[in-house]
Amino acid sequence: MSVTFPLGFRASGVAAGLKASGRPDLGLLVPDGPASAAGAFTTNAFAAASVTVTKEHIAAGRARAVVVNSGQANAGTGASGLDDARAIAAAVAGHLGHGAPEVLVCSTGVIGPRIPVPTLVDGLPKALAALDDDGGDAFAAAILTTDLGPKLSTASWGPYRVGGCAKGAGMIAPRLAPHGLATLLVFITTDAPVPPGDLTGMVREAAMPVWNGVVVDGCQSTNDTVLLLASGAAGGEAVRAGSPEGAGLAEAIHAVCEDLARQVVQGAEGASKVLVVQVDGARDAEAARRAGLAVAGSPLVKTAVCGGDPNPGRILQALGDAGVGLDPARTRAMLDGVVVVDDGVVDEAAAPAAAAALAGPEVLLRIDLGIGGGSATVFGCDLSEEYVRINARYRT
Amino acid sequence: MSVTFPLGFRASGVAAGLKASGRPDLGLLVPDGPASAAGAFTTNAFAAASVTVTKEHIAAGRARAVVVNSGQANAGTGASGLDDARAIAAAVAGHLGHGAPEVLVCSTGVIGPRIPVPTLVDGLPKALAALDDDGGDAFAAAILTTDLGPKLSTASWGPYRVGGCAKGAGMIAPRLAPHGLATLLVFITTDAPVPPGDLTGMVREAAMPVWNGVVVDGCQSTNDTVLLLASGAAGGEAVRAGSPEGAGLAEAIHAVCEDLARQVVQGAEGASKVLVVQVDGARDAEAARRAGLAVAGSPLVKTAVCGGDPNPGRILQALGDAGVGLDPARTRAMLDGVVVVDDGVVDEAAAPAAAAALAGPEVLLRIDLGIGGGSATVFGCDLSEEYVRINARYRT
Repeated sequence: MSVTFPLGFRASGVAAGLKASGRPDLGLLVPDGPASAAGAFTTNAFAAASVTVTKEHIAAGRARAVVVNSGQANAGTGASGLDDARAIAAAVAGHLGHGAPEVLVCSTGVIGPRIPVPTLVDGLPKALAALDDDGGDAFAAAILTTDLGPKLSTASWGPYRVGGCAKGAGMIAPRLAPHGLATLLVFITTDAPVPPGDLTGMVREAAMPVWNGVVVDGCQSTNDTVLLLASGAAGGEAVRAGSPEGAGLAEAIHAVCEDLARQVVQGAEGASKVLVVQVDGARDAEAARRAGLAVAGSPLVKTAVCGGDPNPGRILQALGDAGVGLDPARTRAMLDGVVVVDDGVVDEAAAPAAAAALAGPEVLLRIDLGIGGGSATVFGCDLSEEYVRINARYRT
Repeated sequence: MSVTFPLGFRASGVAAGLKASGRPDLGLLVPDGPASAAGAFTTNAFAAASVTVTKEHIAAGRARAVVVNSGQANAGTGASGLDDARAIAAAVAGHLGHGAPEVLVCSTGVIGPRIPVPTLVDGLPKALAALDDDGGDAFAAAILTTDLGPKLSTASWGPYRVGGCAKGAGMIAPRLAPHGLATLLVFITTDAPVPPGDLTGMVREAAMPVWNGVVVDGCQSTNDTVLLLASGAAGGEAVRAGSPEGAGLAEAIHAVCEDLARQVVQGAEGASKVLVVQVDGARDAEAARRAGLAVAGSPLVKTAVCGGDPNPGRILQALGDAGVGLDPARTRAMLDGVVVVDDGVVDEAAAPAAAAALAGPEVLLRIDLGIGGGSATVFGCDLSEEYVRINARYRT
């Protein structure tokens, strides 16, 4: 169901011939009326042309359609890439009878090659004909590249529904900015009636903290995009960001994002284990997130998790290199409840119990910096030989 | 020869029983008289106790001995670790008839376990008896951990000799600060008569830019240390930092550092290829270095180099994520002379020629940002399945 779980959305996914494999590669998401729209985008200086165009279009806070191609990232394509993204928006808008600025364009795939626009445009009638209020799964399948499978999630709060899907298996270390994330593409919909400004607030508060806390390989993509669309089809009064209804809806959006984020790291390139790092006691939430990302992103920690080796020294190395305020003497770390670092000192005797904690498919590392009230949860994964094979032996 | 190539130094390396393997694990470097000393050290917040003590001792600008143990990093050891480092300095000083503050202590090995100080102290008479003005190679062997072999280099300028050795194969991404680098341990000696302040200047200008431009896995160690000692045994007038003699000597120090840096990345954990990234046209030298480190440190670029895949999109991704000022439209990249990115646009047609450029044991990637006069050279290596095996399957 994903993005078509909320009322007021139709979606489709078809094979338009953009991928050599012949798999689905063109997705459409179309609200029944003008939807409120807000987003967060990669801060990579080589942001894709599709990102640039979508940032321009979303500034108005409204969208009539989202079109996604997989196969080509439309990054590293210069001015031609911008022309291509605009031509795609215009073609979709033409079919729907709206203006091009009401269409949001997302791309994922290889950086460098141009999107074969005529091929994509030839595929649009099929994608439009396939639009369905049960089309969320087909849409979620069409946006995949090296993913093992689609990432889908739904939640409800009061009378409102929230649905989402994501793609991404590598080049993941988002540092999103509002109106401006790997190629991580995340699409979230709701049928709550949320004005655009309030929707932007919900992206900032409920979605960005989750996605900026996801790390696979530390490489922020040129194409990261999180889009949140609100159709208002559930009816009722406008849901404002600060209100109890807004808080409830934001919680549902946050739950969908966390569910999708866990699925992303579970399905990450070569990943055999999920690593969740919960940091508490940091100066603030941002410092907590940076500390968590430094640990979950460290190749030495990731390989240790892969090998089931509770190497607390590598945790300290990564924390100490995170550039956040910390006091070694107050630092504490626990692997699934086993204390491996206390007051900054490695507990060598804890190694066997800690090794047992690393045996399962998901490892919880709790770190307490002991100096403040900042907390964050970071989702990562291990680093295996398979990650290297995927990225050294195949072109992505 | 390494550190005993210059006049006025004796060195030794013996097996004191600190490593379970029984390999050499205790090194001594002793100038004939009081030597000028300057250093650069890790900025990791969990800096090893040995680093803390050596930073205190080197503040006086003079040293009578350097003692190095391999096997235990003496990091993550709290107050006990500080006691251990001071006890080792005091024991060496006692044998030599000097004060403990004149002894510099360096450690490398596993983070967490304490150094078995009695075992080390029991080994000191053997190390002292073995001191020899031809002992540089033995010293260089005793400081190794996961290294495939020692890294040695020598150079001369005018009447002065410069010698050096290094250890380090992983946990390498130094961000050195003066008096305050993986466990990368680098020891450089010269027989030029250089006052301490001038020696500090030479560390900053000739050594730090090289070592802060070396990246294996992006993990800055708790123990990185670069020490430069000048015995003055060649005689003559004091060599000052700004003078023609100072510039010549700095050039020789720089050459020894670059030679050792290349040996470090050649011998890095799992490395099959060296990647040299030459960045020009950056806003300044620091921006150039950060851009080069972002590219050479990217797991996606490193796996592409491993697989011989000229994936220019990954180069752009890493550059765009480096956080340095750049203009995509002015960015140019060349792999061994083959232009793969021009004006920020990937040249898809260049792929076959670029693939050929990746076939050799050393790949030169030139990047021109086209916006300023800043340049830097960064030394890195590829990322192979073997790197993961080494770090997932063995405890280091």
